[in-house]
Amino acid sequence: MTRILVLNGPNLNLLGEREPDVYGTVTLAGIEVAVAAHAAERGVEVQFQQANGEGELVDAIHGARDGFDAIVFNPGAYTHYSIALRDAIAAVAVPVVEVHLSNIASREDFRRESVIAPVCAGQIAGFGAASYMLGVDAALSLPGVGA
Amino acid sequence: MTRILVLNGPNLNLLGEREPDVYGTVTLAGIEVAVAAHAAERGVEVQFQQANGEGELVDAIHGARDGFDAIVFNPGAYTHYSIALRDAIAAVAVPVVEVHLSNIASREDFRRESVIAPVCAGQIAGFGAASYMLGVDAALSLPGVGA
Amino acid sequence: MTRILVLNGPNLNLLGEREPDVYGTVTLAGIEVAVAAHAAERGVEVQFQQANGEGELVDAIHGARDGFDAIVFNPGAYTHYSIALRDAIAAVAVPVVEVHLSNIASREDFRRESVIAPVCAGQIAGFGAASYMLGVDAALSLPGVGA
Amino acid sequence: MTRILVLNGPNLNLLGEREPDVYGTVTLAGIEVAVAAHAAERGVEVQFQQANGEGELVDAIHGARDGFDAIVFNPGAYTHYSIALRDAIAAVAVPVVEVHLSNIASREDFRRESVIAPVCAGQIAGFGAASYMLGVDAALSLPGVGA
Amino acid sequence: MTRILVLNGPNLNLLGEREPDVYGTVTLAGIEVAVAAHAAERGVEVQFQQANGEGELVDAIHGARDGFDAIVFNPGAYTHYSIALRDAIAAVAVPVVEVHLSNIASREDFRRESVIAPVCAGQIAGFGAASYMLGVDAALSLPGVGA
Amino acid sequence: MTRILVLNGPNLNLLGEREPDVYGTVTLAGIEVAVAAHAAERGVEVQFQQANGEGELVDAIHGARDGFDAIVFNPGAYTHYSIALRDAIAAVAVPVVEVHLSNIASREDFRRESVIAPVCAGQIAGFGAASYMLGVDAALSLPGVGA
Amino acid sequence: MTRILVLNGPNLNLLGEREPDVYGTVTLAGIEVAVAAHAAERGVEVQFQQANGEGELVDAIHGARDGFDAIVFNPGAYTHYSIALRDAIAAVAVPVVEVHLSNIASREDFRRESVIAPVCAGQIAGFGAASYMLGVDAALSLPGVGA
Amino acid sequence: MTRILVLNGPNLNLLGEREPDVYGTVTLAGIEVAVAAHAAERGVEVQFQQANGEGELVDAIHGARDGFDAIVFNPGAYTHYSIALRDAIAAVAVPVVEVHLSNIASREDFRRESVIAPVCAGQIAGFGAASYMLGVDAALSLPGVGA
Amino acid sequence: MTRILVLNGPNLNLLGEREPDVYGTVTLAGIEVAVAAHAAERGVEVQFQQANGEGELVDAIHGARDGFDAIVFNPGAYTHYSIALRDAIAAVAVPVVEVHLSNIASREDFRRESVIAPVCAGQIAGFGAASYMLGVDAALSLPGVGA
Amino acid sequence: MTRILVLNGPNLNLLGEREPDVYGTVTLAGIEVAVAAHAAERGVEVQFQQANGEGELVDAIHGARDGFDAIVFNPGAYTHYSIALRDAIAAVAVPVVEVHLSNIASREDFRRESVIAPVCAGQIAGFGAASYMLGVDAALSLPGVGA
Amino acid sequence: MTRILVLNGPNLNLLGEREPDVYGTVTLAGIEVAVAAHAAERGVEVQFQQANGEGELVDAIHGARDGFDAIVFNPGAYTHYSIALRDAIAAVAVPVVEVHLSNIASREDFRRESVIAPVCAGQIAGFGAASYMLGVDAALSLPGVGA
Amino acid sequence: MTRILVLNGPNLNLLGEREPDVYGTVTLAGIEVAVAAHAAERGVEVQFQQANGEGELVDAIHGARDGFDAIVFNPGAYTHYSIALRDAIAAVAVPVVEVHLSNIASREDFRRESVIAPVCAGQIAGFGAASYMLGVDAALSLPGVGA
Repeated sequence: MTRILVLNGPNLNLLGEREPDVYGTVTLAGIEVAVAAHAAERGVEVQFQQANGEGELVDAIHGARDGFDAIVFNPGAYTHYSIALRDAIAAVAVPVVEVHLSNIASREDFRRESVIAPVCAGQIAGFGAASYMLGVDAALSLPGVGA
Repeated sequence: MTRILVLNGPNLNLLGEREPDVYGTVTLAGIEVAVAAHAAERGVEVQFQQANGEGELVDAIHGARDGFDAIVFNPGAYTHYSIALRDAIAAVAVPVVEVHLSNIASREDFRRESVIAPVCAGQIAGFGAASYMLGVDAALSLPGVGA
Repeated sequence: MTRILVLNGPNLNLLGEREPDVYGTVTLAGIEVAVAAHAAERGVEVQFQQANGEGELVDAIHGARDGFDAIVFNPGAYTHYSIALRDAIAAVAVPVVEVHLSNIASREDFRRESVIAPVCAGQIAGFGAASYMLGVDAALSLPGVGA
Repeated sequence: MTRILVLNGPNLNLLGEREPDVYGTVTLAGIEVAVAAHAAERGVEVQFQQANGEGELVDAIHGARDGFDAIVFNPGAYTHYSIALRDAIAAVAVPVVEVHLSNIASREDFRRESVIAPVCAGQIAGFGAASYMLGVDAALSLPGVGA
Repeated sequence: MTRILVLNGPNLNLLGEREPDVYGTVTLAGIEVAVAAHAAERGVEVQFQQANGEGELVDAIHGARDGFDAIVFNPGAYTHYSIALRDAIAAVAVPVVEVHLSNIASREDFRRESVIAPVCAGQIAGFGAASYMLGVDAALSLPGVGA
Repeated sequence: MTRILVLNGPNLNLLGEREPDVYGTVTLAGIEVAVAAHAAERGVEVQFQQANGEGELVDAIHGARDGFDAIVFNPGAYTHYSIALRDAIAAVAVPVVEVHLSNIASREDFRRESVIAPVCAGQIAGFGAASYMLGVDAALSLPGVGA
Repeated sequence: MTRILVLNGPNLNLLGEREPDVYGTVTLAGIEVAVAAHAAERGVEVQFQQANGEGELVDAIHGARDGFDAIVFNPGAYTHYSIALRDAIAAVAVPVVEVHLSNIASREDFRRESVIAPVCAGQIAGFGAASYMLGVDAALSLPGVGA
Repeated sequence: MTRILVLNGPNLNLLGEREPDVYGTVTLAGIEVAVAAHAAERGVEVQFQQANGEGELVDAIHGARDGFDAIVFNPGAYTHYSIALRDAIAAVAVPVVEVHLSNIASREDFRRESVIAPVCAGQIAGFGAASYMLGVDAALSLPGVGA
Repeated sequence: MTRILVLNGPNLNLLGEREPDVYGTVTLAGIEVAVAAHAAERGVEVQFQQANGEGELVDAIHGARDGFDAIVFNPGAYTHYSIALRDAIAAVAVPVVEVHLSNIASREDFRRESVIAPVCAGQIAGFGAASYMLGVDAALSLPGVGA
Repeated sequence: MTRILVLNGPNLNLLGEREPDVYGTVTLAGIEVAVAAHAAERGVEVQFQQANGEGELVDAIHGARDGFDAIVFNPGAYTHYSIALRDAIAAVAVPVVEVHLSNIASREDFRRESVIAPVCAGQIAGFGAASYMLGVDAALSLPGVGA
Repeated sequence: MTRILVLNGPNLNLLGEREPDVYGTVTLAGIEVAVAAHAAERGVEVQFQQANGEGELVDAIHGARDGFDAIVFNPGAYTHYSIALRDAIAAVAVPVVEVHLSNIASREDFRRESVIAPVCAGQIAGFGAASYMLGVDAALSLPGVGA
Repeated sequence: MTRILVLNGPNLNLLGEREPDVYGTVTLAGIEVAVAAHAAERGVEVQFQQANGEGELVDAIHGARDGFDAIVFNPGAYTHYSIALRDAIAAVAVPVVEVHLSNIASREDFRRESVIAPVCAGQIAGFGAASYMLGVDAALSLPGVGA
């Protein structure tokens, strides 16, 4: 059975409460329920993790080497400067799909660049909670992940 | 019934023949068959168009005002400099999902920026032909498109 | 009799429908009627042309060598990157007055520079449809055009 | 009766004597006579002021709140760096039309940007003394100024 | 009773020992005593927290949603690159006053920009330990904080 | 008795009238009354001056050598480009506290840098009229100013 | 027999008429006659094509896959921004020699960079009409083209 | 007896497994054994620590004030952006020798700058595991460390 | 008899008192005495003027058209941004020698560029009060100035 | 008889040995033999010179004033920074054709700009040893060189 | 027996006399004695060379192909701009260890980048004369150099 | 007796022949005769040297430590990039006056910066041959040079 880690970075624990005009009113728990259902339909097991610290996220990516086929990752603010996360992704063999709730291209300049994107398999941004579901499907489309 | 225009920009007519190490060996016709099947499963009608000229693509986007619910658009090289296409997308009410075969973030510097992205609903990049299928699903997730 | 070509670039055919908060609700046809009347008062004959393609606009400028005394040109998005249009203007002897509906200086950064401006006679921006009428008068003020 | 302040910045008092290949041989007094006549034809009263000091020009703009419907302003060199003038224009309710004798887009790099333009109603550049007459007409086209 | 969290970022635990020519010889404990006294005079309760980790500081800001009226925050080195802290501040409703011991404008280039400043209520820098006292007073001046 | 000069730069004479959504509706006179009261409570004598001209402000700073212990200075637009004011501050022994009504860090890019800040004692920004009162207190915290 | 496509971009149809101090007075037809003679001496068949539109030029390059051994290409203004043409050249197996009439290195800044050059076999610039003849010879020197 | 802390930053725990073409196949444990032997020959006691979190590394540097004569530090990805680590190094009196396995000057642009280097005693890069041994010797060459 | 205006910009009235480690302890009056003597030896009449305002300096340069053969000008801080002074110098026929007390090339970055230099005859910097004497001699070496 | 100096800059003496995947395996001596033969066919006398020092190359260009009609010059690494060579070329009346073995446009960023190109007659790059032969022919096409 | 060339660039002949606060008071001769002794202990033969000219240094690197196993190179000022030296290093098979007396990362901006570093085996900087000894040891650690 | 070395850099040996519209028609020998006479009047002995090579100029500056009180140096093109010359000047105790024939501030962008200026005593530019005479006088004004 395919196993996917859905990993969320800093401040995503405040989803629903945080800047709702940008990020919507759905909570992270709400998204996780929907993603789990979506994954189950496809016979995929998902596990969820969220952390505000860069080191914890590096640890989580390292840990995914053990039993996960892919990571769907919303790195939050670290998207834009965490070379440590970039290196962690490049260091493990598990493919990573980068997802964002909002269309980062239409936001502040400093949010347009992702230092993590070059070492990910691909990117999905702008579709709210659906970005995560598309991220699971995208992961399944990668060679060696889905079945 | 939801109708989606799948629009391709310059040089995508050479897909399969063009730099296969970057873009793969699938032809555009092959992708269109797969996308049509994927859409049909979801009860969506898709129409395909490809053009090498910037003006023709502006015309195509204008034309989509007539009967289409969304556009899945791979702007090819125009991604990086066509403000005319950006303006066309902003000018019409039809939402646009930007898709790319390759992960543009891991390519040359000048391919990393999309001048079109800020006026699109969102972006999907890096999943080869699957980017189009994910693009159709993403379009369906947008308010007012699916259902 | 003085003859002036009023030339419009990409997406201006959608005027009135396109981003009305930026560009107003007047249509291009509406502007053309008003400009024709304004010109007629001054004994000037105007001809109108609009194209979305860069090549077509280059052709139109080349064509104006044949019988036109000046061009009033709103290059739309091509303002900001079409060196081909810049070269076309520099290549013909017909003077060009660059006009814009909105005050491009108060918009996005990438809209502030006009690569075409250095080879035009002058620029008028920010007065909505009146920019075209002022453009006709400005053309008439140029040496060798009016009278 | 509509009242317009025609305001000129530094060194414009030397017009006709100063770099005549760039600015022509007409004097400022000559322009003022022509502008007054042009305005009179339209039933507009114009008043003229010139100053070399940034503070004096700020004062003049503040003063225009008292009885003027619009300002036609050639800020001279201050165009390119006077944020104080920019703030003065933004601070008063009187609309400002920025005018230039020469086509600043075809001159030195540091003359191409106007820090004042974003807070003006619009810009007219490149038509010599006629820029002022077009400026008066442009002011009259603004909502609430003419008539 | 107004409650304010006084939060300090990395290396501020070494105050008094660390580069005393830049930061002075007062210790963090010394500052906290003085701030507590200053606050008590104004009937304000203050609580102190210091952390070297970015994630811990994000957690601290999240935690301040529970019972605090304002945060006086010296982000230390994170001032200059922590978008995660910026997002945390933007995510909570508690207003933040950014304080610095030294005048960061007179230091190295990379210390002049604060990525956090745009989402704070305001900034106070350059007054040594007094910056914190001024920070408390500034917080009290904000609408809805001081009684 | 400590004497402080409260100096205001260009356009601040229009406070209350100028862009009230940014700067509030309090007038400069209103602020001066409040600051004088605040200073009197601390046994400090304040004197007020405002000028729109850069040269006048240089003169005012030079003049403060005669009998003032500190300057609380809101340089307005000159904040961003007046090296002459920077030099004037560096040339006199009287310490200067730079204050701003709004949080300049959250405004346009060109308003984020202060060329004056490196030679001031410190900066206070974002607290409206309270910035001046905090500025007086900050001045009093400087060595050799308050008693 | 070796077959070479000599392809010209926008505004080159005006050669001889356009800015003769930069581009000389020879017409494109005149150059084509000379190039044809030069090629015939070497037993090479040349075919000529000129277009002002970017899309048409992309089509022409695609079309050269059918029977041409090399392309001698003067991209005109598109040299400096057409990534679509760059991609077209990279997409076909036919080698391209980039030629320019003038020494682009001694012209305006924006004319110094060629976005097309990296995917061409080489570049020849500055020798007027002779650039085309040298371009034919250069093409013949490439492995697999001449003989 | 001289005591040296050998400190490693994020992802170095994966050494041997991570991008072996860049970083080689030796594990961190393997390096530590070799460094300990090298140090023992010189009568130096070494202690090893590795952490993925920025805060933990700041803590480790603070902790080295207690009993260590020098730090040999491979900051991993934090090399390029952690001003918090830079400040930690500047805050303690223990000298730091920065080491890198690979020649960072020959890698991606963003890996070429070290924000930490200016506050270190010196840098050694490019000699694989030997960089650590050279780092120990370099530390011993510093005034007050060896002997 | 040759007449030279020695013109000084902002803050130079504080010479001797202002940052003596940079500018020395000689006063402006002291320099003027020495320059007058130096000029008298060469049969040159000098006149001195100092102003802190940009507008006043523009006026002074305009005024020099009346009876002066050259200007020796130390523009102080305006050196680096006053395009109004640059235009004033370009507007009059009187040649200007730019002088500086200190070697501006060895100071802060923003002091290294002179926007005025391109329209001056030449520059002399770094020789303290002697810069003015050398400036007089340099003026005399210009064609048409010294007899 | 036309005489051409074929001048080579630093490291070209190692041709054939140096980075053969970039520069090929032909030696400089081998190229010189081929160029001499090519020139002889055209009745041109060539002379060869190579130097690693910038000063020697300046001397060689100065020396070419004596009896040479043109220089075919491969400046090697000096291409990218030697303003001294640029000035030498501009100082002599002998026209210079700049040649490169590889297509410098497709190499590292710092190799893309030639500071020498603006003062050369033209450029030829990318055709290996044939670049020199084309360079001789290009020189002969220049006015006044080839008889 | 391993043979190493210790090569020094411009101005290093003045060591001990030149800016002793930056470079110390040891002379180059003194360093060479110490390095020779250090090398002898390791059974390595070293040879010393110093030159101020770029061309001579290129020659020296070329010459090292004959009998040397490695070069320890302090390129002095050429570090920052000599692409000719970079090419020389890339052209020869002898590995180069770049060394610097001072920590170049803590000096002026223009000294922070080494254009030579990417083609060297590695870098050692900041340990004074010991940098050379470490350089010899580093060279010996390279594959194929030390025995 | 004061001794001054007048040192000239690359291409100045061609003075009079080289770009006479920029540099005039006087030869270097002519200047040297005039400078010698000017110096003799002041009881100063001058010696002249010119070299095209950077290394030779470094040697000349080193050599001036032996018996010269000052150097008047026109570094020619090396002005703009020779850090080796900058280091040589900083390394010797002899003060250097930088001179230029033309006003480098009014020339191409790359000629406006002097990397050498920060370590010189001062600069004189724009007075043709008189720059050298002024340079001698400037040297004499330096503390410890003139008598």
